[in-house]
Amino acid sequence: MTHMANLQPQHFLWEVTERVATIRLNRPDRKNPLTFESYAELRDTFRALPYADDVDVVVFASNGGNFCSGGDVHDIIGPLVGLDMKGLLAFTRMTGDLVKAMIGCGKPIVAAVDGVCVGAGAIIAMASDLRLATPDAKCAFLFTRVGLAGCDMGACAMLPRIIGQGRAAELLYTGRVMTGAEGERWGFWNSLHEAASLEPAAQALARRIAEGPTFAHGMTKTQLNHEWNMGLEQAIEAEAQAQAICMQTQDFARAYHAFVAKERPVFRGD
Amino acid sequence: MTHMANLQPQHFLWEVTERVATIRLNRPDRKNPLTFESYAELRDTFRALPYADDVDVVVFASNGGNFCSGGDVHDIIGPLVGLDMKGLLAFTRMTGDLVKAMIGCGKPIVAAVDGVCVGAGAIIAMASDLRLATPDAKCAFLFTRVGLAGCDMGACAMLPRIIGQGRAAELLYTGRVMTGAEGERWGFWNSLHEAASLEPAAQALARRIAEGPTFAHGMTKTQLNHEWNMGLEQAIEAEAQAQAICMQTQDFARAYHAFVAKERPVFRGD
Amino acid sequence: MTHMANLQPQHFLWEVTERVATIRLNRPDRKNPLTFESYAELRDTFRALPYADDVDVVVFASNGGNFCSGGDVHDIIGPLVGLDMKGLLAFTRMTGDLVKAMIGCGKPIVAAVDGVCVGAGAIIAMASDLRLATPDAKCAFLFTRVGLAGCDMGACAMLPRIIGQGRAAELLYTGRVMTGAEGERWGFWNSLHEAASLEPAAQALARRIAEGPTFAHGMTKTQLNHEWNMGLEQAIEAEAQAQAICMQTQDFARAYHAFVAKERPVFRGD
Repeated sequence: MTHMANLQPQHFLWEVTERVATIRLNRPDRKNPLTFESYAELRDTFRALPYADDVDVVVFASNGGNFCSGGDVHDIIGPLVGLDMKGLLAFTRMTGDLVKAMIGCGKPIVAAVDGVCVGAGAIIAMASDLRLATPDAKCAFLFTRVGLAGCDMGACAMLPRIIGQGRAAELLYTGRVMTGAEGERWGFWNSLHEAASLEPAAQALARRIAEGPTFAHGMTKTQLNHEWNMGLEQAIEAEAQAQAICMQTQDFARAYHAFVAKERPVFRGD
Repeated sequence: MTHMANLQPQHFLWEVTERVATIRLNRPDRKNPLTFESYAELRDTFRALPYADDVDVVVFASNGGNFCSGGDVHDIIGPLVGLDMKGLLAFTRMTGDLVKAMIGCGKPIVAAVDGVCVGAGAIIAMASDLRLATPDAKCAFLFTRVGLAGCDMGACAMLPRIIGQGRAAELLYTGRVMTGAEGERWGFWNSLHEAASLEPAAQALARRIAEGPTFAHGMTKTQLNHEWNMGLEQAIEAEAQAQAICMQTQDFARAYHAFVAKERPVFRGD
Repeated sequence: MTHMANLQPQHFLWEVTERVATIRLNRPDRKNPLTFESYAELRDTFRALPYADDVDVVVFASNGGNFCSGGDVHDIIGPLVGLDMKGLLAFTRMTGDLVKAMIGCGKPIVAAVDGVCVGAGAIIAMASDLRLATPDAKCAFLFTRVGLAGCDMGACAMLPRIIGQGRAAELLYTGRVMTGAEGERWGFWNSLHEAASLEPAAQALARRIAEGPTFAHGMTKTQLNHEWNMGLEQAIEAEAQAQAICMQTQDFARAYHAFVAKERPVFRGD
């Protein structure tokens, strides 16, 4: 196991407080675009998280009133125009690898979205486990507006499971903005918060989850993502095995003993 | 084929009226917890239902103002703490087998949920085909609060398909209560009813379904559950076969002849 | 590649205006039922669409205040009663082939639904990519009311992904009407419009999509339908490949150069 509290990434901000890591992109003057470098560093950070024993939950936060403006037009889209297929596929696989790393990191991710959240930024929100936003959040899967398809980084698989196939199709074919109110109504945003209370709400939610049985949370995350294309019989058997494993943790015993003693359980993630 | 109207279960109430069976747990003083015995007997009852020719629909009802408080802390959770893996897996597989039996019983199940509906109780509601509730129903997938994972009895597979991935993740990671209003808005509850009219509404819905073409209903239930991980092409072919079978039933001919005669069809399930 | 603007179908109306084809059934006096002949001709038309280079989007419109009343009782249901299994399966496969052809046609389909939209009519709306309706639209998957199962033409696979498993189950078991307001709230209808503005809204949406990168739209449609039963890892790899292909289109370069020049991109679908 490793420690990640002292990580010093070059291309985004990173802070760990009581087992909750907070990430925020750091070019607020340009609404926090992604670059080749920040993509790669985010991917590597999420890939390291399964082995970190000092981080239990991640908050992917906004900065300067915006979440992320997606792949930078000058730094990313310009160079892509003219690349050969080998180079293009290397890029699209790198972006997909970021989503795979978020899904596979073993820790719940809470996105806290204010302002602009478009393109790959919308994907990062989508690939998070929980999503909080402000009423003014502007989320757009705008790939079609730059001449591309809606099938980017898993959007055609994941978005329909969050908001339904019909609403996903509309967003992906038109590239239009999903308003905060729409997103909450459709189940994309778990809740809306005014800008000043957005990050406190996300941190409180992250803290609540971090104080739960984090080993079991990791199993929940695995199963939520692995059962998408299982049959029902297979999913139920998979959960029987997964939950039996969790029943051997000390956290399960702690909860029982606390209940009997009429106390609040203190979980430790083992 | 067998008859089940006269079944006399030891661990829950059972009543059959005009082809609608009503089940209710029967420890209302403790909000109807499950025990090892009631789990097993429920599983065996749902396993017998495919062969029963005197039951077409099941209502899983509340009792004393509550639906089900889940696995009893003293009767179930206590003994589980300390069991070895073989014993734990035997338990989680038994609970999963209840869900499999509900899914495979061939008859639509209508849950009528008042008051507490938590843990395995929430799972029973989730595994039903239709769900009615009171505005005060308190439904919580609270496994995380007893130190366990949200992946219990199929929840990570089924809950996202009912209410969407984002909302399911929130309920499973936090264990929080889903209110009646939330559940209706999210599609978990088909409709809300005041306590006094809850069971009449559930019975009327069950009656309406029982008066339909019950052989065809069984096919609908099979396909709704079996097509989850089929490709679209495969699902469409599977439905072509399933519906062609239903077109050979007398109920299909009855509907046609009733229509021509400007009468209301009387279906008989063959 | 072929041209389809001058197609002269025998069993429905067909019009192509600036790359948007509009289909409408044409027995408004009987609320536009389907017949064996119109089923087959619709199937063949959607099967031809992938090769048409003068149509980019399809509007499936209403006619005379109604969308489609489904399979005609006299022309279809009567003859089916008494057919042998070979004949029945030939029919159910033909109807399923219409849905497969709609899904596989490579062009987004916008349904514009006023009035009656039931049985196979509801399926046609469901199999479209986007759905607009009037507040008075009456959509019913009424198969159960004619003695059949809800698993018709893919409904048990597709409807739950649009509106959720619980709401789909209710519609399929009861055959009841989904009101316009319900359908919009549940994500079946993308938006509601008064009757007079329904088709203009559908045409405007179709136009907006047709003015986008249509090659990429075809990829979006393929992935939205093919990823349903992929694992997440597989879906993300599939999208990496699909998007890399789209990055080699001229439309992607056009968007970039337009952005740099502060102009609005003009897409050409190559």
